[in-house]
Amino acid sequence: MPAPRAITSLQNDRIKAIRALEMRKVRRETGLFVAEGVSVIETARQSGIHPETIVHLAGGLDSPVARRVVEAAQGHGAEIIEASSAVLAKIASKDNPQSVIGVFRQRWAPLPDPASVERTATWLALEAVRDPGNLGTIIRTADAVGASGVILIGNCCDPYARECVRATMGSIFAVPVAQATPEAFKAMLAAWPGESVGTALTARVDIRKATWREPVLLVMGSEGPGLSPGLADALTRLVRIPMAGRLDSLNLAVAAAISLYQIRAAHLSL
Amino acid sequence: MPAPRAITSLQNDRIKAIRALEMRKVRRETGLFVAEGVSVIETARQSGIHPETIVHLAGGLDSPVARRVVEAAQGHGAEIIEASSAVLAKIASKDNPQSVIGVFRQRWAPLPDPASVERTATWLALEAVRDPGNLGTIIRTADAVGASGVILIGNCCDPYARECVRATMGSIFAVPVAQATPEAFKAMLAAWPGESVGTALTARVDIRKATWREPVLLVMGSEGPGLSPGLADALTRLVRIPMAGRLDSLNLAVAAAISLYQIRAAHLSL
Repeated sequence: MPAPRAITSLQNDRIKAIRALEMRKVRRETGLFVAEGVSVIETARQSGIHPETIVHLAGGLDSPVARRVVEAAQGHGAEIIEASSAVLAKIASKDNPQSVIGVFRQRWAPLPDPASVERTATWLALEAVRDPGNLGTIIRTADAVGASGVILIGNCCDPYARECVRATMGSIFAVPVAQATPEAFKAMLAAWPGESVGTALTARVDIRKATWREPVLLVMGSEGPGLSPGLADALTRLVRIPMAGRLDSLNLAVAAAISLYQIRAAHLSL
Repeated sequence: MPAPRAITSLQNDRIKAIRALEMRKVRRETGLFVAEGVSVIETARQSGIHPETIVHLAGGLDSPVARRVVEAAQGHGAEIIEASSAVLAKIASKDNPQSVIGVFRQRWAPLPDPASVERTATWLALEAVRDPGNLGTIIRTADAVGASGVILIGNCCDPYARECVRATMGSIFAVPVAQATPEAFKAMLAAWPGESVGTALTARVDIRKATWREPVLLVMGSEGPGLSPGLADALTRLVRIPMAGRLDSLNLAVAAAISLYQIRAAHLSL
C-alpha cells in the first residue's frame, strides 16, 4: 500500500478540490461528496461502501475504530491524506469539526418500477424540499422505519450537501435516493400498484384511522406551501395529521416521521 | 404616537445592542431575544404578546399583515425603527433574511406544581438538549399536540437562540418553557401524580402498546447519550420506539414527536 500523503499547505490542490465540494455545482460536476466523522464512515463501510479519499488529522488516529476505518479504506484503494490541524480546519465543518473526513462517490438509485416494486415496500417522495437538515432527518427516519427509498421530485435541495449528510447520521449510505422530474414522477405514480398517500391540511381522514393498500407511496410537499394541487389530485388518498395547535404547526421532518410510523406500523416491532 | 425612528448608520447604538442579542450572555443579561418575520410576530400578537422594539425595512411595509403587526406593536408602546437595508442586513439572519424583526422580552414559566397539575396534562422535559434547531422543532411539536409546556433540565441550549426561535415558527410564544436544575427536577418528579415516561433503547415495552396514567411527564435525553441513568431509574415507565434500521437511528426531535403523538393520542382529533 502506498504511504499516506502528508499535507500541511493550505494552498494544496487536493485540499482545495475537497473544499470545493461545499459547492453544489462542484458536487454535481464531480459526482463526489464529503461525509464527516469516524462513525459515519464506519456506517458506510458496514454497508460495503468505501471512500475515494480519507483526510485525517496527522497523528490523530487514536481510537481503534478510527484506525479500522482508515485501514479498510486504504485496503479498498482510497487515497489517504494526513493533514495538519490547520489544513483539516479548512475542510471540516465549523460547528462540530471531525478529525476524519471521507470523500465518497454519490449514489443515485433508479426510480422504483411500479411493475416490480415489492408488495410490502414503502417509498417516500418529497416535492421541492428545500431544507437540507430536514431532508437528512427524513432520510434517517426512512432508514429507521425500513422504507425502501426516497424520491426527490423537481427542484429539491441536494441530499449530498454537508448539512444533509450530517443530519442522516450515516443513513445516506443505507437509503436509496432517486431523483425525478415532476413528469417522470407522475408517470410512475399513474402505474403505482398500491396506495399513493399525501398529507393535506384540508383532508378529512385522520392518518391514524386510515388503512393502506400496499405497496405505499407517501408523497410530502415542501415546507410552507405543502403538496402542489396538481400532485395532490393525482394521489389515491389524502390524510391529515391531527393537531391541537395552529394549523400549520408541524415541521416537515416531523410530519414525515409521524406519517411513516403510521404507514409502516405493521412492519415494525421491538 | 411617536414617529418611527430612521436609522441608516451601522454604528448606531440601538442596532449594535440588537445585534448583540446573538450572544447568549447578552440575552441572559437583558432578558430579551429576537424573533424574525411578520408571521412569527403576528403569532405573538395573537397570543397577546407584543415586542419591545420592531425594526423594519424603511418603505418595506408592503403587506397588510406587516402594517398591522407594526401598528399593533406601536399601539402597545413599542419602539419602531425604520432601518436601511444595510442596517437590517446587520441584524437579520443570513440564510433567510426578513424585513421585519421584533425584539421581545423572554418569558420563563414556573415548574408545574405536582399538587395542582391538570389531570389530562402532558409535560415534556428535556435533559441537556444541545441543538437549538431540535429544541425549536420540539417546542413546535409540543404546541401541535397540545402539551402543557417544556422543561429544560440542566445545561440545555437556549430556547431564545435565533435558530431555536426560528424553528418554533411562533410556538415559542404559545408553549410555556421552564428551567430546572437536575435536583429541582427530581424533586418535582418524585411528587408527580401520574406516569413519568422515558424512551430508552434498552426498554422492553413498545411505546405503541403502552397505556398512560395521566398526567404524563415525558422525559427525553440529549442527542447521542440519551437519558442519564440516574434520571432513567427515577421514571415510572421506560418505553422504546420500534426501529427497523440501526439502533440509534432517530433524530431527537423526531423521537419526541413520535412519543408525544402516542401519549396525546386520545386528546387529538380532526
